[in-house]
Amino acid sequence: MEFHEAPRLPQGFACASRHIGLKPEGKDLALFVSEVEAPAAALFTRNQFPGAPVILGKETMRGGRLRAIVVNSKVSNVATGEQGLDNARRMAHAAAAEIGCDPERVLVSSTGVIGRQLPIEIIEMGLHGMTEELQGDPIAGAHGIMTTDTYAKALSTSVGNATITWVAKGSGMIEPNMATMLAYIFTDAQLSAETLDGMLRAAVRISFNMLSVDTDTSTSDTCAIMANGLAGPVDAKAFTDALTEGCIRMTELLARDGEGATHLLRVTAKGAKTATDARKVAKSLVNSPLIKTMVHGADPNVGRILMAVGKVFDATIVPAKTSASINGVHVVRGGNRLDFDDAKVRATLAADTVDIVVDLGVGGETATAYGCDLSKGYVDENAAYYSS
Amino acid sequence: MEFHEAPRLPQGFACASRHIGLKPEGKDLALFVSEVEAPAAALFTRNQFPGAPVILGKETMRGGRLRAIVVNSKVSNVATGEQGLDNARRMAHAAAAEIGCDPERVLVSSTGVIGRQLPIEIIEMGLHGMTEELQGDPIAGAHGIMTTDTYAKALSTSVGNATITWVAKGSGMIEPNMATMLAYIFTDAQLSAETLDGMLRAAVRISFNMLSVDTDTSTSDTCAIMANGLAGPVDAKAFTDALTEGCIRMTELLARDGEGATHLLRVTAKGAKTATDARKVAKSLVNSPLIKTMVHGADPNVGRILMAVGKVFDATIVPAKTSASINGVHVVRGGNRLDFDDAKVRATLAADTVDIVVDLGVGGETATAYGCDLSKGYVDENAAYYSS
Repeated sequence: MEFHEAPRLPQGFACASRHIGLKPEGKDLALFVSEVEAPAAALFTRNQFPGAPVILGKETMRGGRLRAIVVNSKVSNVATGEQGLDNARRMAHAAAAEIGCDPERVLVSSTGVIGRQLPIEIIEMGLHGMTEELQGDPIAGAHGIMTTDTYAKALSTSVGNATITWVAKGSGMIEPNMATMLAYIFTDAQLSAETLDGMLRAAVRISFNMLSVDTDTSTSDTCAIMANGLAGPVDAKAFTDALTEGCIRMTELLARDGEGATHLLRVTAKGAKTATDARKVAKSLVNSPLIKTMVHGADPNVGRILMAVGKVFDATIVPAKTSASINGVHVVRGGNRLDFDDAKVRATLAADTVDIVVDLGVGGETATAYGCDLSKGYVDENAAYYSS
Repeated sequence: MEFHEAPRLPQGFACASRHIGLKPEGKDLALFVSEVEAPAAALFTRNQFPGAPVILGKETMRGGRLRAIVVNSKVSNVATGEQGLDNARRMAHAAAAEIGCDPERVLVSSTGVIGRQLPIEIIEMGLHGMTEELQGDPIAGAHGIMTTDTYAKALSTSVGNATITWVAKGSGMIEPNMATMLAYIFTDAQLSAETLDGMLRAAVRISFNMLSVDTDTSTSDTCAIMANGLAGPVDAKAFTDALTEGCIRMTELLARDGEGATHLLRVTAKGAKTATDARKVAKSLVNSPLIKTMVHGADPNVGRILMAVGKVFDATIVPAKTSASINGVHVVRGGNRLDFDDAKVRATLAADTVDIVVDLGVGGETATAYGCDLSKGYVDENAAYYSS
């Protein structure tokens, strides 16, 4: 599948972002608009302290249709009580007034620090006149939703006459269910809200929900899709494939840009007895600090692979049937460390993408998880995130 | 309860440690001996890739009696197949020959890198004449089992006429079930193997099994207790209390000395609906990289507490009933961040021990978990552990 080098929004969609002073510098407010109402679906964090925008968003999505998505960074509007929920509603109203639509057709997201009230007046004023700046480059919108991401992320691809475009941000407090992330998908394909919901769930299950930067599940995670239908019907199979592949591609971008990350770590567990076993084992490796530091140091302490497989107490694991490889170099067979070429494994661990494949040898199920190495940069960024 | 400032082994126990060349420098072999056979019990790692010493140890413990424990550091004898198991047996035989006892009365432990064969000849030679060096200071034995610990750890206390002494090592690849650790407990109290087993399980459940340095469960974890009976019977309740308190005290020492740690992080979840909920919530906070870096940076980003509580998807959590404090300063009430004195919370986060208490407000169950902050030192130590 081809992803456009210069991503663009599908027809009928436009976006803008502004610096309104929530952050000392950089864009901190983004608006995504469809010129017509679009069937839509969304998935939200499973964290039991969902932010006000998530609480409101679940209500909004019952309508199954959206005109716009409005997002601020810097303050997440989480743990802010009734006032927080009022502020989220005010943010939807302000965006709706600017666009000229029903506030119930506006999805609100906020990302940033937890436990601070939203400076809602600044956002209301900031939205004023923003529709005049709407344009077709999704990167412009991506800039407005960033927190600690090092660059703005957008992708687009084609399915028949339709376009699909992803705009997303990471990059810490990321372990999906959803990933701690905001991901918005726009398409001009014609699909019902119900169809979108099923397609989105299936795609997210093997992409964003297999992403983990640091095992910490955000209170704000949101993944939404809008399909305004302007390109007409599409082949459902082709669309599903493209949606899934793009979600995986974006998951990899988010993992690679995890806080402090210097490598993309991709772990596939195959030969598992059950799909759940495969997911748990892949996640166990991607989340293991000792695997993550091994990748960071490019030091082939491969016994840690067995440790991280073995700590999934409730999976079917037979040491004698377990093998593993790093970027295609076999390092474990029959549960034992192979006498591999140390320099070769060191070199492959230093690659930008490190693929660890574990074959459990007890069944036919496979799963892949996405993460990154653990570096001092992660500690630096998170030991003083709040004050900065 | 008083713990002796200068710990000593109970009567009839002695230990020694040597540098035999497994590590470039420092003690790397330890021997603990009781002059008479002692009823004994042990708990081992639940990792599904147990090391050869764990496999052999489970066999040994079926006898319910021990004369000695022999431990090497540097190489863990894990993922080493049949040869590894043979080597573990040879280590038991060599220790038994030196002491003059049945090899089935010798518990073997190995700690260090995974996937390397044990240099068994060096160990066999190293054990030669070691009984001549046996003496009563447990610190001497503690030196022989260290890997990345920064100091040797031993504790002792008295129960009636009896003494209990703990010798243990941490400090990375530590999330219990057991903790990635070796902990040996010696007492001259008179207790049956069956009684010891029950007492040990109960104590470990709320101490070592609530310790997590990095969520990674070692393949070598072992906690064993030997009771040689030379001090005669003890009050069972008093002994249980002392055993539990010493295990908690040692757990705190191991947590505080976790790799790279600069703080002891102690998290208590109270007011939980079930004991499992309490344990999961306490563990979730102790394991959260964002909580750990918050403590490291002494930066009161207290929203992360709610995030880490809320990511326990299957616990009963009612945001409006949730409150939290840091070293006694209330920071969250009714699920919302309080308007606390920032400087005060910063100061309390900088204390050597950081106690976070979360009150879920939905029941009467409590649990405490033990961990440490996440520092660049952890990354440094683990990005190049194997080569060092």
